[in-house]
Amino acid sequence: MKNLIIASTSTVHGGTYLSYILPRLETFFAKTDEILFIPYARPGGISHDEYTEAVRKGFESTGKKITGIHTCADPVKAVNEAKAVFTGGGNTFLLVSQLYRTGIMEPLREAVWNGTRYFGTSAGANITGLTMQTTNDMPIIYPPSFKTLGLVPFNINPHYLDPLPGSKHMGETRETRIKEFHKQNTQPVVGLREGSWLYVEGDDITLEGALAARIFEQGKAPYELESGNRLNFWPSVRKDL
Amino acid sequence: MKNLIIASTSTVHGGTYLSYILPRLETFFAKTDEILFIPYARPGGISHDEYTEAVRKGFESTGKKITGIHTCADPVKAVNEAKAVFTGGGNTFLLVSQLYRTGIMEPLREAVWNGTRYFGTSAGANITGLTMQTTNDMPIIYPPSFKTLGLVPFNINPHYLDPLPGSKHMGETRETRIKEFHKQNTQPVVGLREGSWLYVEGDDITLEGALAARIFEQGKAPYELESGNRLNFWPSVRKDL
Repeated sequence: MKNLIIASTSTVHGGTYLSYILPRLETFFAKTDEILFIPYARPGGISHDEYTEAVRKGFESTGKKITGIHTCADPVKAVNEAKAVFTGGGNTFLLVSQLYRTGIMEPLREAVWNGTRYFGTSAGANITGLTMQTTNDMPIIYPPSFKTLGLVPFNINPHYLDPLPGSKHMGETRETRIKEFHKQNTQPVVGLREGSWLYVEGDDITLEGALAARIFEQGKAPYELESGNRLNFWPSVRKDL
Repeated sequence: MKNLIIASTSTVHGGTYLSYILPRLETFFAKTDEILFIPYARPGGISHDEYTEAVRKGFESTGKKITGIHTCADPVKAVNEAKAVFTGGGNTFLLVSQLYRTGIMEPLREAVWNGTRYFGTSAGANITGLTMQTTNDMPIIYPPSFKTLGLVPFNINPHYLDPLPGSKHMGETRETRIKEFHKQNTQPVVGLREGSWLYVEGDDITLEGALAARIFEQGKAPYELESGNRLNFWPSVRKDL
């Protein structure tokens, strides 16, 4: 059975790395003492080692062992044998390119469908959707495909941002961008504000955390989903599993 | 000889479509009475016809004839025979996909290198660069390539936005995104603030309009270029033409 936490961000304003969500992660990862970390989206300026070290520090109080997948000779084997996986944020185009290049996109999908617990923040949350096409990131590298893990039957927009009142900037708001997405694509989009996450347990998907989420369905007006409510109104794309 | 106006935006806050730049366009297009309009980036919710009509209205006082390329049976022929071209804004992924699909990417490049006057706003400005990889747009469609017209030896970031003072949002600033771009790519990036544009005349590239531009070169601290100054410190990528 699928078990995922899909989080808008790793860090909320004023907090430290993962601090806002750590109590929830202790429950979520209670039955495992090891987490495989995927640093491929790494933000500019730091190495995979440094990124993994930051994650170790974030999880320090939990006593979990964190292994960076970049240190594994066979990344596919590492995914297949992982007890739990965490994919951190950075740039989604880079992350998706690396997941394809290393051959772990499909093994990771299979592992999570088969029960390996998965936690993702930002870019690592975005890839749990059907495609990466509602990322906010800059296309700094050309990935072989925009298709992602499809672990939920919709797309994720992490770091969801409401329009700024009184802004004089003429660039599109996030809502306008997602409306444009729906001119070309049919799947719903879940806009996750910073500090909120989705908890996926099999076919049940619950919004948790501090804030409401904004839901976009093609041909409907966007609407709010309050924390604590389920997103179980869409049929799962892979009910058979 | 190349002649381009590469503008951050079609509209500034409080103005009407193209109003802020119309006096400059009258000089730029003084010797032509016809402009071929490329509406392929069209923003969500309007048709190519409606978009072309908005452009006609914007240019109304100039007396120019505006033809939407979507009404031409042979778009390649339309580009080859055009006296001048205007590409409007919308979504850059959509625009680039359509330029490849209709087969006009290469003919458009050749036409402008050979002297057809070109004006582009937002997405239409972005595609004059080496690649579309410093767009701000959402990847709503998968284009066959990120390579664009390469009419200037750098990339464009339209609607350039300075960091918002006091923001509590944890998403990347524009500057951070462009720094991430430079972890993967070497070409310089010109961040064009709304209300400014580049005027390209052969190898001479001048910043015009109300505001300074922000220049990003790999391995250097970003810096400001004041309006009225030239961007002639890079060798042209196609000096031979």
